[in-house]
Amino acid sequence: MDKFNVGKHISGKFNEELEAVRNKVLAMGGLVEKQLADALSAIENSDVELAERVLSSDYKINQLELEIDEQCTRIIAKRQPTASDLRLVLAIIKTISDLERIGDEAERLAHVAKASFNKDQEHLLVSLENLGQQVLMMLREVLDAFARMDEEAALQVHQMDTNADRQYEALTRQLMTYMMEDSRSIPKIMDVMWSARSLERIGDRCQNISEYIIYFVRGKDVRHISREAMEDTVRGAKS
Amino acid sequence: MDKFNVGKHISGKFNEELEAVRNKVLAMGGLVEKQLADALSAIENSDVELAERVLSSDYKINQLELEIDEQCTRIIAKRQPTASDLRLVLAIIKTISDLERIGDEAERLAHVAKASFNKDQEHLLVSLENLGQQVLMMLREVLDAFARMDEEAALQVHQMDTNADRQYEALTRQLMTYMMEDSRSIPKIMDVMWSARSLERIGDRCQNISEYIIYFVRGKDVRHISREAMEDTVRGAKS
Repeated sequence: MDKFNVGKHISGKFNEELEAVRNKVLAMGGLVEKQLADALSAIENSDVELAERVLSSDYKINQLELEIDEQCTRIIAKRQPTASDLRLVLAIIKTISDLERIGDEAERLAHVAKASFNKDQEHLLVSLENLGQQVLMMLREVLDAFARMDEEAALQVHQMDTNADRQYEALTRQLMTYMMEDSRSIPKIMDVMWSARSLERIGDRCQNISEYIIYFVRGKDVRHISREAMEDTVRGAKS
Repeated sequence: MDKFNVGKHISGKFNEELEAVRNKVLAMGGLVEKQLADALSAIENSDVELAERVLSSDYKINQLELEIDEQCTRIIAKRQPTASDLRLVLAIIKTISDLERIGDEAERLAHVAKASFNKDQEHLLVSLENLGQQVLMMLREVLDAFARMDEEAALQVHQMDTNADRQYEALTRQLMTYMMEDSRSIPKIMDVMWSARSLERIGDRCQNISEYIIYFVRGKDVRHISREAMEDTVRGAKS
């Protein structure tokens, strides 16, 4: 865990605090990932009970966000971190905000899983599967990149979003065709449309997190820059 | 400006830095407000030129976000703020993230303003006006509350969102009815649906900013708590 400079701090207590907060982010990430996986599975299997469990678990994510945020504020005030320590704390503060909102999107998906679709409409839910799995994979990989603070892995997640966006576009076009063909199903199709949008937003948030990882590792803010400039930031120094 | 403790710092330079960053947030807020107002006006008047101007101005908001974020990081590293100074810096870091995303939503609205609607479809755009004005008012008031760090005004913005959500729900129901009645217009109606969603999300982001204001003033994180608990936090100490 050399990247985290554990061992370089004069205060062993400071190390412990940073390590504790980092572990808590990983726990929060694991919970968010589970919420998303469960919400997708609830949709796939029309599992109302599982959907209810997702809805009743969201408060844990909110709770973790507040706790981690408070711990980060305390670390800044007490330890006055600079350089990479400060970047780590700021990256964490931003990451948990995106994680919390991914949790909110999972909640929205769970609501849709609870809505009843008849036999003719079930194919609509199936259409969410590919995008759902793609986005779940992005979330897994960005959390993994965060755990290892691996900027190359973060860059790869960032670029996966192009594919997710493409799937999302195709899906919304398809859903609009269904609407035109079967106007009575429009309210249900809109549910699926909002779910697709939720998934697309989760992909965007995974991109955000990958930007924070690169910021921590490289000390450079890579938001709002071109794909090429981002690749240069991550890979440039190596070649 | 007693709330900002200007004058209490031993370093006059620190005061200047905090004041400079605060002013920059206000400038950014002003720009975001203009972008939203212009996007709404472009929709209302089918003003493609104005919509283009919104699209070509978004980079300025992104730029300000990066600059302010960097200044905040520098202040934390160099001045090692604690207590309310630290809360101000952290509230700013979070506020600019929401402002930047409000800018993104304004961009989405501008895209819709560029799409051509025929005479029969123009009434769809008109239906966005009420929600648009409501949300623009929320943005104005939350920026005003931020400028004065007025937690009572922030609380009022927070509560205005109930009304915006209600308008949004009514609007989406109405749009679904239009879809069922005129299936050929579904793609255009979807554009309006996404715009309504953008507006609804802007309302949520104004709520977020009002939470950061209350956090700064009261030193208490009011995210994820009930309306009553939030009112107690803001008003409790006064009565």
